Amino acid sequence: MAQEIERKLLVDELPDDLDAWRARRLEQGYLAITDEAEIRIRRADDNDAWLTVKSAPSLSRVEEELVLDADAFERLWPLTEGRRVVKVRHTREDAPGMTFELDVYEGALAGLVTLEVEFASEEDARAWTPPPWAGRDVTGDKAYANQTLAVHGAPRSASRDD
Amino acid sequence: MAQEIERKLLVDELPDDLDAWRARRLEQGYLAITDEAEIRIRRADDNDAWLTVKSAPSLSRVEEELVLDADAFERLWPLTEGRRVVKVRHTREDAPGMTFELDVYEGALAGLVTLEVEFASEEDARAWTPPPWAGRDVTGDKAYANQTLAVHGAPRSASRDD
Repeated sequence: MAQEIERKLLVDELPDDLDAWRARRLEQGYLAITDEAEIRIRRADDNDAWLTVKSAPSLSRVEEELVLDADAFERLWPLTEGRRVVKVRHTREDAPGMTFELDVYEGALAGLVTLEVEFASEEDARAWTPPPWAGRDVTGDKAYANQTLAVHGAPRSASRDD
Repeated sequence: MAQEIERKLLVDELPDDLDAWRARRLEQGYLAITDEAEIRIRRADDNDAWLTVKSAPSLSRVEEELVLDADAFERLWPLTEGRRVVKVRHTREDAPGMTFELDVYEGALAGLVTLEVEFASEEDARAWTPPPWAGRDVTGDKAYANQTLAVHGAPRSASRDD
């Protein structure tokens, strides 16, 4: 699988047109988080579900997604207790090869909103100007990785642009 | 999934009729081993492959097996480095509800042979008399759990009945 080129920013206020974006509520939980890998299950509100294995960022990138049926998801979910994230993911294709994913977190993470933008090239990523409603750039900041959020909650200054 | 009722013994010498048992070579590796769960991938010599999630024995038992295609197995296998077991599994149905699995380990574990017998009931398990070629009973001994063997190798007295 190709290397992902993306930037991640905090969101200070929701964009006006958010209702027009595609939205899916995602429940995700971690079966295991180790130095080498994370194994996650995720279910969307249309009941599609997956198990994903990702290597740690430091290792040669492996990301493998397996489809889970609804029953299997239900049986595995209890194993993720204490390592969960629930969020509504709003998605918009901003331009060819450029996808916006705006995640509005729920539960213990309520108040946290992030924007991830995936680019077709490093050049596009560098050239991009964030929208005015986006805040601090947290690209590569482990504190905002979903596995960290699931286990440790949101950093204190999550919603501030400081 | 139903509770497994099984006993596990070391094997001192291979049974004479082993050639008549069904045999499959299995490569298995652990993507993650935590206090709560193990996530394992396994491939048989006919190229069937699976990813299995098991809860830790202390927790309410969950065991979920997902089919992996050959390519997915190949991509995930590098993530199991240092946590692998290769063995030939010989299988025989000894009686209805009673399955013998005799595992002949290879590589770093060569010399280790175990027998696992699965029973239909606790009563059957207690009443069972092991065959003369079987040795020490290691039922419930964590040192002989495959995840331990994969990470730490065989206990020193593995092939002795002491």
